[in-house]
Amino acid sequence: MIKVLFSARPAAWDEYEAPLRRAFDAAGLDCDLSRDHAPQDTRYIVFAPNGPVKDFTPYVNTRLVMGLWAGVETVVGNTTLTQPLARMVDDGLTRGMIEYVVGHVMRHHLGMDAHLAGQDGVWRDTVYPPLAKDRPITVLGLGALGAACGQALAALGFPVTGWSRSQKQIDGLTCLSGDDGLTTALSGAQGVVLLLPQTPATDSILNARSLALLEPGAFIVNPGRGPLIDDAALLAALGSGQVGAATLDVFRKEPLAADDPYWSHPRVTVTPHIASTTRPDTAAQVIAENIRRGEAGLPFLHLVDRKAGY
Amino acid sequence: MIKVLFSARPAAWDEYEAPLRRAFDAAGLDCDLSRDHAPQDTRYIVFAPNGPVKDFTPYVNTRLVMGLWAGVETVVGNTTLTQPLARMVDDGLTRGMIEYVVGHVMRHHLGMDAHLAGQDGVWRDTVYPPLAKDRPITVLGLGALGAACGQALAALGFPVTGWSRSQKQIDGLTCLSGDDGLTTALSGAQGVVLLLPQTPATDSILNARSLALLEPGAFIVNPGRGPLIDDAALLAALGSGQVGAATLDVFRKEPLAADDPYWSHPRVTVTPHIASTTRPDTAAQVIAENIRRGEAGLPFLHLVDRKAGY
Repeated sequence: MIKVLFSARPAAWDEYEAPLRRAFDAAGLDCDLSRDHAPQDTRYIVFAPNGPVKDFTPYVNTRLVMGLWAGVETVVGNTTLTQPLARMVDDGLTRGMIEYVVGHVMRHHLGMDAHLAGQDGVWRDTVYPPLAKDRPITVLGLGALGAACGQALAALGFPVTGWSRSQKQIDGLTCLSGDDGLTTALSGAQGVVLLLPQTPATDSILNARSLALLEPGAFIVNPGRGPLIDDAALLAALGSGQVGAATLDVFRKEPLAADDPYWSHPRVTVTPHIASTTRPDTAAQVIAENIRRGEAGLPFLHLVDRKAGY
Repeated sequence: MIKVLFSARPAAWDEYEAPLRRAFDAAGLDCDLSRDHAPQDTRYIVFAPNGPVKDFTPYVNTRLVMGLWAGVETVVGNTTLTQPLARMVDDGLTRGMIEYVVGHVMRHHLGMDAHLAGQDGVWRDTVYPPLAKDRPITVLGLGALGAACGQALAALGFPVTGWSRSQKQIDGLTCLSGDDGLTTALSGAQGVVLLLPQTPATDSILNARSLALLEPGAFIVNPGRGPLIDDAALLAALGSGQVGAATLDVFRKEPLAADDPYWSHPRVTVTPHIASTTRPDTAAQVIAENIRRGEAGLPFLHLVDRKAGY
């Protein structure tokens, strides 16, 4: 029996227990899934940062810690966690993120808010939006989520530029990297989607200087991480019209304070960190696959690079 | 010189003159484009129903009448129009329609209106929408627009059923036809997109009986033609909750009367027939291609079937 410890909130156990057992069975893995294995007996840990395990020191025989979350910024600095660590890369999470990003990009692209606000009996049939092919969009971050969202937008006709720390090559996107690449990627963009990891290098990557590069009236969609944005700079850019609208799903402090100016700004939409979530059925399959690999002596999938921080 | 008569509103002339001249040049066609050729000299007519030509009888040497509009219901019954008639099938119009349909389907799919209404400082992070893969959508009408919109939705993960009068086969879609096919197509659908032509056979195709087949709470997106919907039945279905939301771009009478109940219904979005429009640059290329074909003795593209009415 392979002892697998589940260390997340009780609500997550209710969601994940059955899908994990099904996935282990389907993979032919003889796993003993529990929330209270002794540390020295635990071979694998399914982990969320808000679960009970904070100190990984006694888990001396653990081969892999498997996060349930895509972001690892709250755990990557845990100095007791010396075991291999895998991020969650889950097709369900990716699909949900594509749907959120496409939905909000299309909403801003179509000028939908003006229609929603204009249900007053006045027939305003004069203005058509440009076609997507004339609306350049930039996606910052080209991990599993950024690449998939960029490709979905490109498939809808948008010219999509993607930017990442290291140079990537992704079908359908113009890929850039580095500081000069960032300036090029943002210059003239009419929409920006943020899907970078949270690291010291990405903190406030959208700031007064970088926001000034965008096409005036550009929109921002941030389903990535709150600290990617300098909030004061974004509010100033919204005030000047340099940024036309923003959809923000993540914030430096969550829940967002009830009196935060984002809530009341007429051109900001706050969504409560719901852009996408790990889906138990598909995530359980990813976890089972990593255990299968560990038992077969194969390399693990989705390992975190501790130095890069993601 | 090939005499081409332009018969549409003066505003259309301002939009189309330069793109048409460019497209004729690019196709190597020696055309004389004007708004006042003598009928007997006119070899081709670029036509909109709201332009000056209503009686086609004197155009005895005209080889083809080329509509600027995708819908031909206002002209197909004109008994003086015995010349071949082409509908507009324009890539720009198709792209715009895809963008409108994807935008409004994603808005309803994501439950975006609840977020837009909930900008009150309360962090409601409990409910995730299902993924697109669990949200069956039905597209009624599989012409150029319906097929393209269905495929775009399928590419985003929705299971898409398409229905048309005659059986079609379209990659990525489950295609149905006929009366039984319509019942199957609508049964359990969580979203319906209407892109049928307006004919006697499609009048009120969404009525009390067909709306009752949908999954309760389904949404309707109608960028096709107003008469496809029995308005009293739709309002009743909205009232009972059988239909959760509707985005309506077209109406039996346009502009929609200022006191129409659709304007004030909290779960109906009226857009003023702006879902998509023929785009002069791409439409001019389609017109030039049909003239090239006529001069070369090749069959015309996009001919209207007078008997079917589209």
